[in-house]
Amino acid sequence: MQARRLHPPEDSAAIEDILHRCVALTGLADAYVAMVALRGRPMVPGSRRPADCANHFVAYAIPWIDVIPPDVQARGAHLWVASVPRVPDASVDPTVKNYQWNDLTSGLFEAHDRGFDTSVLCDAQGFVTEGPGFNIFVVKDGAVFTPDRGSLHGITRLSVLELCADLGIPASVAPLPRGLLEDEADEVFAATTAGGVMPVSRVGRRILGNDRPGPISLRLREAYWRRHAEGWHRTPVRGLSEAQAATRVSAPAG
Amino acid sequence: MQARRLHPPEDSAAIEDILHRCVALTGLADAYVAMVALRGRPMVPGSRRPADCANHFVAYAIPWIDVIPPDVQARGAHLWVASVPRVPDASVDPTVKNYQWNDLTSGLFEAHDRGFDTSVLCDAQGFVTEGPGFNIFVVKDGAVFTPDRGSLHGITRLSVLELCADLGIPASVAPLPRGLLEDEADEVFAATTAGGVMPVSRVGRRILGNDRPGPISLRLREAYWRRHAEGWHRTPVRGLSEAQAATRVSAPAG
Repeated sequence: MQARRLHPPEDSAAIEDILHRCVALTGLADAYVAMVALRGRPMVPGSRRPADCANHFVAYAIPWIDVIPPDVQARGAHLWVASVPRVPDASVDPTVKNYQWNDLTSGLFEAHDRGFDTSVLCDAQGFVTEGPGFNIFVVKDGAVFTPDRGSLHGITRLSVLELCADLGIPASVAPLPRGLLEDEADEVFAATTAGGVMPVSRVGRRILGNDRPGPISLRLREAYWRRHAEGWHRTPVRGLSEAQAATRVSAPAG
Repeated sequence: MQARRLHPPEDSAAIEDILHRCVALTGLADAYVAMVALRGRPMVPGSRRPADCANHFVAYAIPWIDVIPPDVQARGAHLWVASVPRVPDASVDPTVKNYQWNDLTSGLFEAHDRGFDTSVLCDAQGFVTEGPGFNIFVVKDGAVFTPDRGSLHGITRLSVLELCADLGIPASVAPLPRGLLEDEADEVFAATTAGGVMPVSRVGRRILGNDRPGPISLRLREAYWRRHAEGWHRTPVRGLSEAQAATRVSAPAG
């Protein structure tokens, strides 16, 4: 919010309270919870100055969504490397979460037109960036790689890096040439909070391994959800009844 | 809408009817009328496929707004050439009107921080593109230049080119190097439907002419509003009363 000079009236504590209350009101044990800061309307009628706008905060909770559906995760997603180049970091900072998804949506259309499940975008320099709502990881010779650019520094990306460290899997955040993803990867997976570690089994026309999720991807996925079930990086929702909370599953569907 | 695969239920005739009715309902003789096609929510709950969304059409009419305020137009706007590069055309097609304004908004913040009225963005190759909601024109040695890239092919841009042809002013649509705007321009003006021809008197620290709108800019501005008053490219609003319509002014404020 600071990067985009958004100053809604709620402070961090108030936002946290709203999020708890929002989920509790739905009674959902497995919810997809989102929060958005909006520029809002100008307080000075007719003003075109962003600083004149009344910024506000919006939150919502809906039944859980996997960004890649569970059945697709189970067989491994078919990933299309889009022809549309990612908007450069200098124009729109991808580390500041935003919904200016024109390029990502174009990539999704390309993917779906060709029968793929989802897409990933490369930048104009030929480096892999991210997909619509997820970070991307490549496994090569037992090591994990994820891009240093063109992408959100996602919370779940960080969790994957933490898991790799704990499991003794070498992991690097570095420029990821398109060829490493398209031609050289042993495995590929995506990661986002709404889906966790989501294996990929095909990249373009190339089939990875035996057309199923690879072993390191599965190991990370299993560890991710096991730890999640143990309470790792989790905050119990205040105001959710004991009965509601007990139904919280958070198990991988695949 | 076709370029973004947006298919709201209304056809062109229905959209036209809605716009007429929208203005008539406000009773505004001078209105700023906007229409937006939205992707909408997925008809399949939880779907992340844009094709599953129920696209819809939104229109609104509010009291007239000049994108650059009339008093600023009268003295000539102070234009900041932003450091943030315009999103490339290959990533987001600027000829398809959209509100993914992160780069343009960053440019506005830069401008306002420095006491300028508004900003214009250049692309990574050093060519001038557009500002937040307007096209840009440079006058040099009696000829008018406007960018061929990085910008909306605006309706008012087209009207300016039409006026230039009628008035015998040479006009070109071509790559416009940043130096032509910053260092070599005799005059600069912006153009948009919500403001018409809007003169600029300063570009960065450089003062153009005698720090007032230049003669060709003023000639175009005067011709633009005179023709407008004569009915040029205008469609009378159906359902607006005679009394309301008679108050329509459309005169330049400066």
